[in-house]
Amino acid sequence: MARVYNFSAGPATLPVEVLEKAQADLLDWQGTGMSVMEMSHRGDAFVSIAEKATQDLRKLLNVPEGYSVLFLQGGAAGQFAGVPLNLMGSSQKADYIINGSWGKKAVKEAGKYGDAQVAANSAVDGAFTDVPARADWQLRDDAAYVHYTPNETIEGIEYPDVPDTGNVPLVGDWSSAFLSKPIDVSKYGVIYAGAQKNAGPAGVTMVIVRDDLMGNPQSGVPMVLDYKKQADADSMLNTPPCFAWYMAGLTFEWILANGGLEGMAERNQRKADKLYGFIDSSDFYSNPVAPQARSRMNVPFLLANDELNKTFLAQADEAGLCTLKGHRSVGGMRASIYNAMPEEGVDALIDFMRGFEKANG
Amino acid sequence: MARVYNFSAGPATLPVEVLEKAQADLLDWQGTGMSVMEMSHRGDAFVSIAEKATQDLRKLLNVPEGYSVLFLQGGAAGQFAGVPLNLMGSSQKADYIINGSWGKKAVKEAGKYGDAQVAANSAVDGAFTDVPARADWQLRDDAAYVHYTPNETIEGIEYPDVPDTGNVPLVGDWSSAFLSKPIDVSKYGVIYAGAQKNAGPAGVTMVIVRDDLMGNPQSGVPMVLDYKKQADADSMLNTPPCFAWYMAGLTFEWILANGGLEGMAERNQRKADKLYGFIDSSDFYSNPVAPQARSRMNVPFLLANDELNKTFLAQADEAGLCTLKGHRSVGGMRASIYNAMPEEGVDALIDFMRGFEKANG
Repeated sequence: MARVYNFSAGPATLPVEVLEKAQADLLDWQGTGMSVMEMSHRGDAFVSIAEKATQDLRKLLNVPEGYSVLFLQGGAAGQFAGVPLNLMGSSQKADYIINGSWGKKAVKEAGKYGDAQVAANSAVDGAFTDVPARADWQLRDDAAYVHYTPNETIEGIEYPDVPDTGNVPLVGDWSSAFLSKPIDVSKYGVIYAGAQKNAGPAGVTMVIVRDDLMGNPQSGVPMVLDYKKQADADSMLNTPPCFAWYMAGLTFEWILANGGLEGMAERNQRKADKLYGFIDSSDFYSNPVAPQARSRMNVPFLLANDELNKTFLAQADEAGLCTLKGHRSVGGMRASIYNAMPEEGVDALIDFMRGFEKANG
Repeated sequence: MARVYNFSAGPATLPVEVLEKAQADLLDWQGTGMSVMEMSHRGDAFVSIAEKATQDLRKLLNVPEGYSVLFLQGGAAGQFAGVPLNLMGSSQKADYIINGSWGKKAVKEAGKYGDAQVAANSAVDGAFTDVPARADWQLRDDAAYVHYTPNETIEGIEYPDVPDTGNVPLVGDWSSAFLSKPIDVSKYGVIYAGAQKNAGPAGVTMVIVRDDLMGNPQSGVPMVLDYKKQADADSMLNTPPCFAWYMAGLTFEWILANGGLEGMAERNQRKADKLYGFIDSSDFYSNPVAPQARSRMNVPFLLANDELNKTFLAQADEAGLCTLKGHRSVGGMRASIYNAMPEEGVDALIDFMRGFEKANG
């Protein structure tokens, strides 16, 4: 079968150039006679791969001095514990802003380690269709940090800008919007992200942390989640997820070669505008999210008639438009259109949706 | 360059057939039109990969009913925390047997979560050359578990058999000997192992746990390390390290196709006997470990003249015999001869060593 357009929310489609490069080098990376998967993580070859990836990520995000960049295991869900374990500090308080499913999980996990308070929650009857208005955030001055989710993958809700939390460090779970546009890292205490959306395959998690926030973890922090120890060891306190790190590095190179984050942002906005524009122009498809909070990455949509869902998915699949089923908690469809989804994929999806509406609307 | 013989202690050489299969399917796994790295972990394709790998691992190890098999992130070092967090239970006591570097790290980490006692330690002047005699183990009847390291990767020390700890569950960090020979799983409470020795690439960690030991973790256990929660979610509480899991699955298939663990054990013993036999027959090379505790996986050896180390490594590298440098804490050389190291690789190493001795001895 030819390659399909894969709208999976994550793990997600990767740039075909990245996969081709990995394929070519799979048994012999650059004349070393071994696969990246077989290299000692302490050897010169892998260290050069890891350092290049780290430098490229710093370049992409323009990471300022005074921040460390870590490549860890455990996913963003691992950081739901990692953040409070490292940052809650002496006040043992943290404020969480909730605008979707992942934020809810994050605050629940943080509650194991201290007083994690929901400072704002945009749920209405359990459903999320917007971010909480900034005026409604009940922040505490003595909180160790404020945590929010810039893009909620399941509900398709994205913040249009970075909230200002004054002197309290801001922590963002950037997983599903990471590297989709420029980020002003200096506004954050911690940025973390699982790679498997815009930044590589599952299995590696990036954490960008302001150095002054490290070094005072709770006593029960597992060593693999200890930011300071990992920073001091260049993320190799133990064997890192070498191949996932390498694939992330190839993805960073691809982004740099394709206009950097400005290029990604421009293209992602265009793809999202096209798809939302089509949905809004139709009476058959709908998206419930407030326009100013619509995700450029994850576009959930409903059919006018729920009973057509299965037919829609089957016919889309046949047309090479795959993994469009919405999350069970939201229903309907979801098209994730990350960096690596070409504009042609979005065009093909819209064409298909138009045809399906014509036949069934 | 042609493929080399790679004696890395981990990440380590993989079966070439496994790499070739992964390479062939890298952009399109079995006609799905996508890479394994791009698949939703909830989709039918990846679920079938994960289930097959799990079943094959159960088959290889003959895992009895009443044990769960988990595929987690964070490495064995993550389990240094995972084990006490899940198992220390009401007594808050655990006994650790120390016969090398990894056991020392494990007991240090466990000390964060309760009374982790060194019950035996075979170090003499800080160096390990044997396992502690069973008669010297100071075990406590009310310990929640006894932890030991069946194979110490750095010192090259391996237990010839499984210690009997009576009613106290036995926990083994099997990382560097996992799948190198049959294991009687029923003698264990928990077996855990990073994949990157005999079982795949770095980035996935297997945990085999007796079901009655799960479900009573410490309150601070990160959800990603919670055995019961992960078991209930088929190791997909969050996005798993999909590609590493898949590669581990291909490796299990390769082991099954090559005689299973009996076949591995037979071949590994023959390789080790050859190499130790040559070292013992030479006045130029030496291995300090007590013969009954010599590792079949990791063979450290010293040259009679330390000053020749660099020359040895450079010439070996030129001969396509790579990653032979010993760990800095031990010095000298180390040849790791895991499942995927062909017997021809060991033969080539011995030939090279013989020639080097002739030229320099």
